[in-house]
Amino acid sequence: MSGLSLASLALEGTSRIVLLVLDGLGDIPDADQGGRTPLEAAATPNLDRLAPRAALGRLLPVAPGITPGSGPGHLALFGFDPVATQVGRGVLEALGAGVELRNGDVAARANFCTVDAGGTVVDRRAGRIASEVSTRLCDLLARSIGRIDDVEVIMQAGKGHRFVAVFRGAGLAGEVSDADPHREGSPIPAARPLAPGPEAKKTGAVVDAFVRRAREVLVKEHPANAVLVRGLSARPRLAGYRERFKLRAAAVAAYPMYRGVAQLAGMDVLPTGEKVNDAFTTVASRWKDFDFFFVHVKATDMAGEDGDFAAKRAAIEDVDRALPALTALAPDVLCVTGDHATPVAVRGHAWHPVPVMVHGRWCGADGAARFHERACVSGSLGVLPSRDLMAVLLANAGRLDKFGA
Amino acid sequence: MSGLSLASLALEGTSRIVLLVLDGLGDIPDADQGGRTPLEAAATPNLDRLAPRAALGRLLPVAPGITPGSGPGHLALFGFDPVATQVGRGVLEALGAGVELRNGDVAARANFCTVDAGGTVVDRRAGRIASEVSTRLCDLLARSIGRIDDVEVIMQAGKGHRFVAVFRGAGLAGEVSDADPHREGSPIPAARPLAPGPEAKKTGAVVDAFVRRAREVLVKEHPANAVLVRGLSARPRLAGYRERFKLRAAAVAAYPMYRGVAQLAGMDVLPTGEKVNDAFTTVASRWKDFDFFFVHVKATDMAGEDGDFAAKRAAIEDVDRALPALTALAPDVLCVTGDHATPVAVRGHAWHPVPVMVHGRWCGADGAARFHERACVSGSLGVLPSRDLMAVLLANAGRLDKFGA
Repeated sequence: MSGLSLASLALEGTSRIVLLVLDGLGDIPDADQGGRTPLEAAATPNLDRLAPRAALGRLLPVAPGITPGSGPGHLALFGFDPVATQVGRGVLEALGAGVELRNGDVAARANFCTVDAGGTVVDRRAGRIASEVSTRLCDLLARSIGRIDDVEVIMQAGKGHRFVAVFRGAGLAGEVSDADPHREGSPIPAARPLAPGPEAKKTGAVVDAFVRRAREVLVKEHPANAVLVRGLSARPRLAGYRERFKLRAAAVAAYPMYRGVAQLAGMDVLPTGEKVNDAFTTVASRWKDFDFFFVHVKATDMAGEDGDFAAKRAAIEDVDRALPALTALAPDVLCVTGDHATPVAVRGHAWHPVPVMVHGRWCGADGAARFHERACVSGSLGVLPSRDLMAVLLANAGRLDKFGA
Repeated sequence: MSGLSLASLALEGTSRIVLLVLDGLGDIPDADQGGRTPLEAAATPNLDRLAPRAALGRLLPVAPGITPGSGPGHLALFGFDPVATQVGRGVLEALGAGVELRNGDVAARANFCTVDAGGTVVDRRAGRIASEVSTRLCDLLARSIGRIDDVEVIMQAGKGHRFVAVFRGAGLAGEVSDADPHREGSPIPAARPLAPGPEAKKTGAVVDAFVRRAREVLVKEHPANAVLVRGLSARPRLAGYRERFKLRAAAVAAYPMYRGVAQLAGMDVLPTGEKVNDAFTTVASRWKDFDFFFVHVKATDMAGEDGDFAAKRAAIEDVDRALPALTALAPDVLCVTGDHATPVAVRGHAWHPVPVMVHGRWCGADGAARFHERACVSGSLGVLPSRDLMAVLLANAGRLDKFGA
């Protein structure tokens, strides 16, 4: 990206861009499937219609060999440098749990744990208590604590022993060490400020008070009689789509994590349903209100994580079947891609470049028969850092001015 | 590499990586050879067996159009930014001469030269004296000088009038100007400190004393009656493979330069023979002791430098014939590449991207029929800075954690 600010080149316009992200789309050829990837094996008549008139290529989410989490994968697609723009663990966890964060909020991952009479942590996961127990204990803590001095404490139960804690109040900071010994046999350490200034100090004191009061509230519970707090981080203040790209941007995503990251990136998050059809219907219903739509499809990633080739292929075919609802809107630029690879063989996120297709009036028609990993290797877009995709989309939408005279 | 530290993502593991470097492997099609490169023309049945199941691509050692020396070429393969991590001329010369350097050593390239009675340099190369003469004079200097105050001076004769001088002692620095006028007709200038602090000043004084005492020792010699010293540089302190990648790394290389650079990069340098078979036998004999093996083959580069197509092809075929000894070890990741191109037509190092093949469980099978420059153009690895190769190898070995949640 060479330090060039898109904000200085972005133009107002009436053109519309759709960024359709099939989570974990990228894959590798599967020998048991005739050496094809799920995208290659899928029947995709609607994508096939677009492919010859589109520009193909591959996105590198972070750097060669680097496997991105969902946060960096999406922030890069949204035009941020995913290394420079790191979002803390606590914030990502809170977003994933559906907690809406405000500027200034400090979020943390938290555990229920077991301590002995002397305060030594004897089980960091409190015997892996059931989610229902965790929910009950979060309610108990919320009723009993709720607030520490002028700081509101918001809790949201997660899976098993895990929950999210958000500290909301003036003058807080994320630079605070974990109130978590990270191993059994030690007491819960105090949360130390990791930055100068009163904010980190205040936050550390609030976290310590929360841990102390939680022990009082949970004193008769077993095995979950204490809490650990880690990954404290403040909601970052990121420049929005309007400010960076002169775009009114909307996010259409069913899963909290992606809704949250899109909100961080400055999009309006629209209510929508879980199915691909729901998402496309949402886009159609708000077509006039926005210039940019980020549409997120989760099923591809889930199938990849499960190592389920057939399910991943089916998820892609689902999207293809629904696609006419989107193309009927005649977006000036339609981009189909993923945030990272989740190859079936890997059963998890991976480092491989991600296929990308950009369709628009001036994209340059590569003439590829279909859109898949192999076709993308020789696509005219080449290999592109994900964070540069927004520039390509804006350019194709006629929304970027010439650089220099 | 976007500033991301692999050290923070590297995982412990039991997987093994082999990086097989055919020095100067890259080449360009030769019209007299049916438009083929040596790699294309070579009979490589064993590489051909790997190729379809491998990921192919091309490495860019430094930057487009930049021809790398052996130092930067290898440092990039070892994961260093070859521009930011510059190793001084003197250090490279010392490593190439087989002088083992310790932390804090300052090494220099040196010449025997001829000065007239007034101290003016009349021949910077002392009539290009024979190597035997140079060896005798180095011995003479070593016996007569050996030490300047608390600094040990180590000399190693090179080709013709050249030798290496290493200054070993506390408080030295490489930031010292050359005691060399770089042209005839001038006296030998004093070595000036190029950095503040006592270290560069002390080193300059030691170099000047060395030049002065060498003139006294050589006063009756002719034509080599003085010495010039240039390219002063300190052995850099580079983070090792263990520290950067959580790898126990071994280098299997017959030539001093590559043994030296590998040692700088934090590898254990194993004793081995000159033949490819020797190298592979060495790897097999230490298979349990290391996670990463760098194997260096020099013959390809020498043939390229000689402009000898048949010899380069034969050198590649030699490697291919020996390859089963390596593949029999079933490395989790096998990478075959070069440190730079040495095209037969150029008769020297060149700037062209270098073919690379990465073979492993999750590499993604490109399905290429063979491994050569042309096939690599459409490989799934694309064009990769050499310094990012280690990330790709670690990822393929399951040794890199996800970046971000």
